[in-house]
Amino acid sequence: MTRKRTLSTFLPILGWARQYSRQDAVDDSMAAVIVTIMLIPQSLAYALLAGLPPEMGLYASILPLVAYAIFGTSRSLAVGPVAVLSLMTAAAIGALGLTTPQDIALAAALLALMSGGMLLAMGLLRLGQVTNFLSHPVISGFITASGLLIAASQLRHLLGIDAHGHTLVETLHSLTQSLPDTHLPTVIVGGIALASLIWSRRSLKAALLKIGFKARAAELTAKAGPIVVVIGTTVAAWALDLGAQGVALVGSVPTGLPPIGLPSLDLGLIRDLWVPALMISVIGFVESASVAQTLARKRKQRIDPDQELLALGASNIASSISGGFPVTGGFARSVVNFDAGARTPAAGAFTAIGLAFAAFALTPLLFHLPKATLAATIIVAVLGLVDFGILKRAWGYSKVDFIAVAATLITTLAFGVEPGVLTGVAASIALHLYKTSRPHVAEVGRMPQSEHFRNVLRHEVETLPDTLMLRVDESLYFANARFLEDLIEERTAGDHPPRNLVLVMSAVNEVDMSALETLEDINTTLRSRSIDLHLCEVKGPVMDRLQKTHLIRDLTGQVFLSQWQAWRALGGSDTPRSA
Amino acid sequence: MTRKRTLSTFLPILGWARQYSRQDAVDDSMAAVIVTIMLIPQSLAYALLAGLPPEMGLYASILPLVAYAIFGTSRSLAVGPVAVLSLMTAAAIGALGLTTPQDIALAAALLALMSGGMLLAMGLLRLGQVTNFLSHPVISGFITASGLLIAASQLRHLLGIDAHGHTLVETLHSLTQSLPDTHLPTVIVGGIALASLIWSRRSLKAALLKIGFKARAAELTAKAGPIVVVIGTTVAAWALDLGAQGVALVGSVPTGLPPIGLPSLDLGLIRDLWVPALMISVIGFVESASVAQTLARKRKQRIDPDQELLALGASNIASSISGGFPVTGGFARSVVNFDAGARTPAAGAFTAIGLAFAAFALTPLLFHLPKATLAATIIVAVLGLVDFGILKRAWGYSKVDFIAVAATLITTLAFGVEPGVLTGVAASIALHLYKTSRPHVAEVGRMPQSEHFRNVLRHEVETLPDTLMLRVDESLYFANARFLEDLIEERTAGDHPPRNLVLVMSAVNEVDMSALETLEDINTTLRSRSIDLHLCEVKGPVMDRLQKTHLIRDLTGQVFLSQWQAWRALGGSDTPRSA
Repeated sequence: MTRKRTLSTFLPILGWARQYSRQDAVDDSMAAVIVTIMLIPQSLAYALLAGLPPEMGLYASILPLVAYAIFGTSRSLAVGPVAVLSLMTAAAIGALGLTTPQDIALAAALLALMSGGMLLAMGLLRLGQVTNFLSHPVISGFITASGLLIAASQLRHLLGIDAHGHTLVETLHSLTQSLPDTHLPTVIVGGIALASLIWSRRSLKAALLKIGFKARAAELTAKAGPIVVVIGTTVAAWALDLGAQGVALVGSVPTGLPPIGLPSLDLGLIRDLWVPALMISVIGFVESASVAQTLARKRKQRIDPDQELLALGASNIASSISGGFPVTGGFARSVVNFDAGARTPAAGAFTAIGLAFAAFALTPLLFHLPKATLAATIIVAVLGLVDFGILKRAWGYSKVDFIAVAATLITTLAFGVEPGVLTGVAASIALHLYKTSRPHVAEVGRMPQSEHFRNVLRHEVETLPDTLMLRVDESLYFANARFLEDLIEERTAGDHPPRNLVLVMSAVNEVDMSALETLEDINTTLRSRSIDLHLCEVKGPVMDRLQKTHLIRDLTGQVFLSQWQAWRALGGSDTPRSA
Repeated sequence: MTRKRTLSTFLPILGWARQYSRQDAVDDSMAAVIVTIMLIPQSLAYALLAGLPPEMGLYASILPLVAYAIFGTSRSLAVGPVAVLSLMTAAAIGALGLTTPQDIALAAALLALMSGGMLLAMGLLRLGQVTNFLSHPVISGFITASGLLIAASQLRHLLGIDAHGHTLVETLHSLTQSLPDTHLPTVIVGGIALASLIWSRRSLKAALLKIGFKARAAELTAKAGPIVVVIGTTVAAWALDLGAQGVALVGSVPTGLPPIGLPSLDLGLIRDLWVPALMISVIGFVESASVAQTLARKRKQRIDPDQELLALGASNIASSISGGFPVTGGFARSVVNFDAGARTPAAGAFTAIGLAFAAFALTPLLFHLPKATLAATIIVAVLGLVDFGILKRAWGYSKVDFIAVAATLITTLAFGVEPGVLTGVAASIALHLYKTSRPHVAEVGRMPQSEHFRNVLRHEVETLPDTLMLRVDESLYFANARFLEDLIEERTAGDHPPRNLVLVMSAVNEVDMSALETLEDINTTLRSRSIDLHLCEVKGPVMDRLQKTHLIRDLTGQVFLSQWQAWRALGGSDTPRSA
């Protein structure tokens, strides 16, 4: 799997920029316009979700896109603030107990810087595969739980009340307590925004098709639905002076870009933030890589996971030095970018220009934007992440996977995002070890008139009177070595023990040192009971190791290439008596 | 593996006591006398090693033996204080910063109580197999490192200086600093004791044989060598009044047994001690179970790991309420007990009587016993545990096992016993996952004139022109799902992609949900490139699960029972063109 790494491996822009055509530029700009329109409300909303001033959402959507355009290997990934990372950022910074907005903003930038550094380091160490240790069930459970947590956290903006909490119980409890303070005008604005957003998500495309839009145009125009809701509620708030009636508005947003600079490196903060930064790096990379891979596959392109780590690292550092917070490749915006026809990462750079323009010219217009509208935007976006079906699918497929999903889901809801991910990873690994520690072992016999051997319980097969053939369906390693020993002791006990025990090793991909010592013990024990131990179908790499050991030197029986050879050598003819 | 559990499962004494014969009683008493003589100095020495007053070693060797005789399933295991647990007890209690001997003794008793409770709980939960997660290399590395730590910790008693430390570096550094204070008379006593013990260990048996002892008598008498050294140095210390010259003596030891009672349950202490208590439980059980298993195998008896957990739990609780500290089955004493002819656990109960007599009648005689003698006893005992050969054997067998041994060994020496064990377990699991995350995948072809298929790189085999047969030598699960996807993408790329891809699943013992989703993705990707995906040799339990999934419903190719059937169906004849 090792590929030669050249300068253009590290700077993929050198690959595509050389062949960049006028048509590419037209396609990329078109996509950029649509993504920009979609990103303006989203980036403000995610900043709000992260507990940060709204302009930071815009800042986090400019330079990171440029950095990804230079270093990224996906042609369509759109990088910026996303819901789950914003939630994790809010949790990480909330735990610090900071009070001034300046400190909070600096901590968010530091978090992005640390996460960027970690991603860069992981990329240089070629750890692109490490995220495999997050199993699909764990990711699904985590994403669903995060969606619920995020939605719950936004209810306060919809109701115009004050409520907080890092877990579902805390948040709902806090909401219930403040419920009497519900602010009616806010509820009306939020309700209208929510209803319009849901309608535009569910039915706008169909409505546009009905009035004569082409399929693709309807698809893309429908994605711009949220901006209409944003404009509508902003105008309404201005016209009706809702701010004076107590509806929370975004208020004055600074115009222009922040000065570029590193956040201050406070050692105490770094110590407090390294665990969340690591989680944000890993979760962000998993989300981004899976989006990038899905889209690349559709156009038969490839992404390079190690280079993606570097690109996301660069994006987060870019976010950090330009007043942003942790970013990654987002699902919804990348799909829109892809569907809108983006051909190269230049589309991202064009989107960055669009958002920079917004930061320079449009911020005064955001004054009257109700926070309830942004909350509604977030709720609609994250409810798409919630997928309880995973519980049912996992239950149907495997109870072990179900436990992993359920543990992740419940822990995330009950204890927050970090314990959720950690529990999920620990549960997956523990369950995997548990499963492999009790391997399936089948007694096999010969399928009549063939050289094939199958489980005696599943097939009509022939066996030999004095020979027990056991097929071990698992690699032999420390977690199951003892189990095998006990099992063999049990199977060869009784009044009529066999004379020969054949271990069929076709499914044994590894014999580690613990298992080797156990096999030596088994050989010794069986010898004392006059039972010969034979091995067959030992795989090449396993045999290479065993060759040099006491086990093979002292083996009471033989090592056969195939089950058939073992069968013949131990007295089986072509017409043995039936079992 | 489930056996019916009756009252005599929980009280194995009901099994053997019924048939207890006069001959059994004679054999058991003989063994008990020899073990008692061996245990008196050892139990004092291990209390010293644990940083406790010497009489606690005697106390820890009385009731626990009785408890084990009632609940244990091994016929020859001898329970009591052992070197490694004493070291762990010293480390755990040293970290508490207690100052008065009373507090220290109470903490040790509490540690035994907690460990006993944990062992009981593990036994009731039938977790006898959990200790499998400590791989043999990790155990070997840990034991060797502990032996070195223990030996280093005893040097101060041999030199008559004051030095402390929980790691090898700390201990050696502290020793070097105090070296100028070396106390010559102590060094002489210690040196003589050490030399005599080493001689009695190495050459006493041969000497006894030479003067006419029978083989077994020589063997057992040689084991009593240490008591002679103890008596000799004690008498010398009394006769020469070495105490007055500054040689540290055991001094006055209370006569009789301590009052029976629970240690006070201080919640703060419990919080500080639960991690060490868990470690002591697990390590103690591993040590004890492996000794018990080795001895049981020699007499074709069996031990029941879950019941052993209960028995060790009861022993530790017994130790705790009778003024002792954590205990487990010891290797050396169990082997002596076995060799001396113990037939039933009653031998342990008789040993308990012997030690109770010692506690009542012999403690005044211990006044002049030099601590240097006890230190020499410990050093000689633990140097038998040190086995650097494991590093060489592991290196020769597998680099991954070597890393696990080396990591455990180094971490234990450098950071102490708890970090050592934890690092070892984490390293074993991480290395196992890493290995299985990059599985061996072989392209296979047909062995001429047979129905067998082998790796094209290792054998002269025939292949089909449009068909790629890949045998995956690992269960498919979250850690390697992505790897397989990348590998298949790579193998089917190029200018002449195959028409058929056959995955040979003979070594795939599991397909978890992550891998299932990946296989579905692979199927979709290959379909878009007009390559059919086939499966063959899918194991029964795996197929049972896959049956209900999209993968099988949407599979572009077929599921074949055997490679041979796949070969025939995809155009292979009996005389295909050679590869």
